[in-house]
Amino acid sequence: MNAPVFPAACERWGVYELALPGRSDGNPFADFTICGEFRGPGETKTVPGFYDGDGVYRVRFMPGCEGIYTFTVSGTFSDQVYSGSFEALPPSPGNHGPVRVAQGVHFDYADGTPHYSIGTTCYVWHLQSPEMQEQTLDTLSRSPFNKIRFCVFPKHYDYNLEDPSCFPFEGTPCDCSGITRRNFMDYGAFFPGRSIGVPKDNRWDFSRFVPEYFRHLDETVGRLAELGIEADVILFHPYDRWGFSCMTREQDEHYLRYVIARLAAYRNVWWSMANEYDLLPAKTVEDWDHLGALTRALDPYGHLCSIHNCMQLFDFSKDWITHCSIQRISLYVCAEQTDEWRERYHKPVVLDEIAYEGNIEFAWGNIRGEELVRRFWEATVRGGYAGHGETILDHIPTDSPEDRRLKLWWSHGGTLKGESPARIAFLRSILEEIPGHRRLRRFQGSWDDIAAVAEGPDPGCYLFYFGLMAPLFRVFHLDDETDFQVDLIDTWNMTVTPLGVFRG
Amino acid sequence: MNAPVFPAACERWGVYELALPGRSDGNPFADFTICGEFRGPGETKTVPGFYDGDGVYRVRFMPGCEGIYTFTVSGTFSDQVYSGSFEALPPSPGNHGPVRVAQGVHFDYADGTPHYSIGTTCYVWHLQSPEMQEQTLDTLSRSPFNKIRFCVFPKHYDYNLEDPSCFPFEGTPCDCSGITRRNFMDYGAFFPGRSIGVPKDNRWDFSRFVPEYFRHLDETVGRLAELGIEADVILFHPYDRWGFSCMTREQDEHYLRYVIARLAAYRNVWWSMANEYDLLPAKTVEDWDHLGALTRALDPYGHLCSIHNCMQLFDFSKDWITHCSIQRISLYVCAEQTDEWRERYHKPVVLDEIAYEGNIEFAWGNIRGEELVRRFWEATVRGGYAGHGETILDHIPTDSPEDRRLKLWWSHGGTLKGESPARIAFLRSILEEIPGHRRLRRFQGSWDDIAAVAEGPDPGCYLFYFGLMAPLFRVFHLDDETDFQVDLIDTWNMTVTPLGVFRG
Repeated sequence: MNAPVFPAACERWGVYELALPGRSDGNPFADFTICGEFRGPGETKTVPGFYDGDGVYRVRFMPGCEGIYTFTVSGTFSDQVYSGSFEALPPSPGNHGPVRVAQGVHFDYADGTPHYSIGTTCYVWHLQSPEMQEQTLDTLSRSPFNKIRFCVFPKHYDYNLEDPSCFPFEGTPCDCSGITRRNFMDYGAFFPGRSIGVPKDNRWDFSRFVPEYFRHLDETVGRLAELGIEADVILFHPYDRWGFSCMTREQDEHYLRYVIARLAAYRNVWWSMANEYDLLPAKTVEDWDHLGALTRALDPYGHLCSIHNCMQLFDFSKDWITHCSIQRISLYVCAEQTDEWRERYHKPVVLDEIAYEGNIEFAWGNIRGEELVRRFWEATVRGGYAGHGETILDHIPTDSPEDRRLKLWWSHGGTLKGESPARIAFLRSILEEIPGHRRLRRFQGSWDDIAAVAEGPDPGCYLFYFGLMAPLFRVFHLDDETDFQVDLIDTWNMTVTPLGVFRG
Repeated sequence: MNAPVFPAACERWGVYELALPGRSDGNPFADFTICGEFRGPGETKTVPGFYDGDGVYRVRFMPGCEGIYTFTVSGTFSDQVYSGSFEALPPSPGNHGPVRVAQGVHFDYADGTPHYSIGTTCYVWHLQSPEMQEQTLDTLSRSPFNKIRFCVFPKHYDYNLEDPSCFPFEGTPCDCSGITRRNFMDYGAFFPGRSIGVPKDNRWDFSRFVPEYFRHLDETVGRLAELGIEADVILFHPYDRWGFSCMTREQDEHYLRYVIARLAAYRNVWWSMANEYDLLPAKTVEDWDHLGALTRALDPYGHLCSIHNCMQLFDFSKDWITHCSIQRISLYVCAEQTDEWRERYHKPVVLDEIAYEGNIEFAWGNIRGEELVRRFWEATVRGGYAGHGETILDHIPTDSPEDRRLKLWWSHGGTLKGESPARIAFLRSILEEIPGHRRLRRFQGSWDDIAAVAEGPDPGCYLFYFGLMAPLFRVFHLDDETDFQVDLIDTWNMTVTPLGVFRG
């Protein structure tokens, strides 16, 4: 590597990256330190660097202001200390900065633009073929979704039996040739008592990362940022036959330091400590508290951070948690409890899994689009944010090699086939049209109102949702002195019909 | 009145009635006693009589056995004691006797025939025009419903603003000419704080009944018995502008004695102490316990007895309660809690109000037929029994005289317009076809099974319901050694498709 040349400029909330030569003896992922100090107008930040293989270390920084920044990079990675400066330019169109909690229970981008979280889930879309990843990005670019949940680690589960082309750690995976759609539950770290644990023939050096794997992850997050999509990065998950879910505390910390050093400078990152934390038998709540607090401490930018449950909600009141990331714990209600959770935790309520539009065999993946859209509206009128997923099969799968490779949006991305995304786009357009970008909170005039009022000094609007109700008419008692412009919103046919002006 | 002639015979579980002359001075409803003692093969019962106006007293008795009965009637109503005998004949076809709790959480008729409770609600159908009552009976005769809930007293509520042609007590009602669909809540005994109470211009003598009113009630119950329909008689309710819901303890007891003396001999009577007990501001839980226990003590036949809630379930574990009579307390779930309540109370769970198929303005009356049918199946696979109601408008009502007289099945009976009754009939046919008349209890093999198993020493069948789920396929893990005949039941299109035999 020649003497490094540092970029002269970077847009505000972009990724300013320094590539530096350093020591490659021993284990450069573990044996040496590297950090950068950045001083600019209004902020000074110390950020971690990381080893990216081939003798190259990198330091990434997200400037939070415009203007001239100076920096110094030092550590045991090199005998040399590197210094320089660059100019942080105005953000390009579409770059609104990282998303923050706003008004206690909502979200804004750093530039003050409201963020109405409309998420989807494609757990390991970045581990599919390059063609399929491009297809996913193309689908996302034409979708209503502004957040996507996905995992750092590969996934072992039904419809996810194949090995990825590359692994995050040096070593070799267990033999998966005998794993079928029928017996996959037997091979894994999850479902204690039902599985035999992680197969013994995994051979990993958890102290050595595969830079190629993580480089691709970085690129993935960057591509999403270009599309204006938040990357809800799941740091741990239980669908694991490789042992990534049952590393030691030290190995977990080593991994977190590496991922955070690589990803934190991307403005669109959200940290999800785990998917279905309560299905990881090797981790306790105390572990999660430790790892969550560590993540927040290592992240120089205060990205959003939460943890996602299976059967039992995490205690979202913990300091290290910025918002609720909820999976429904009942087959019947979840979105309907949004306001209850908002009141309990005083944090934004994001319902990341409320069952997916689909027709697979499991209850979490076989509700109709109409029901998913209903749940989105229920969450919305209660001031929360729902998430989407899709698991639509076009035939009953067998254990054939072809069917082992079946692709479902929920895990693999690709294309969307469901009826809900168009309706979710319509819902998003309604949210974005609320006067003054106000946010919603539950309004309940009569016992059977499922309604929201736009928060603010005076009501911008009321939004009454009828959900399971199909009234021919309805009597509203609002404000006798106000004339209300009334629109009838058809949430399925996506029409808005003005009904005229009524005295409240 | 000439010397009485006593009928020579009566079928088992029929009404054997004695008409006797007696004193008509003073207040014959209150001042004199009358009771009959009946001795037959296997039972001796003392039953109350009642004054039916015009100097006539009646004693009604339901023989529980076949064979020769002797009787004696005595009391202060007459200086004479009457005696005689009659033969209790075998029951006619369709007469299975009164319904009893069976197997702890289900129902049988007295002859052992299973009773699968499929109720409907027409609160004051017996107070409509004679033509409309005939229409209701005709509709019921062609419906799946084998139980109907209705009130002894007239009803004051939206869509129920007119006075009946006759009242249960001597006197005159309040002026109702100023009561409209908009202000009806202001005139009544219910919704404390919202209503001004019962209008002051009611003039009643609660000690004197109007026999004509009750004669019609008897006839109504008898007509239902002929159709094989249980009469779930609501003894008190809060929709009241006349004061019938806020009588004194003594007046309540007087009323109960009268109604029970008249009705208890009808095999199809169920006692419902109240509709929405918790909306009667004049009554406490202690009052209900007293009145419920009194009803059970006064009733010689042990008819089923319960009490129905609005916002808070009554404690159905009380001794005087034979089964749960539940109104849903959430807009979203109720039938889904059937098994929970069954486990809690160890009594049959009857979900009498789970919202009605309809399109009126209130959430309790505007779900679609599809949703009501879903709730019926949810209750069924959990071993409970759901109830129907219908509130379908064909236009938006105004305060015009015509619209004040709008008729809805839920209150007035008439004809059924909804889509659910045919599907409920289909459900009933499925229940009646369960091998060996077995009953259902919740079965949960995997976390997302919504299923029932037919109770018994070995399973007669399993019934898996998919409700909100729409899987393309499903894997079942039952018994590896058993061959299962599998039928696919389409609960909406009412088809049963045999899929063949599968090894469990």
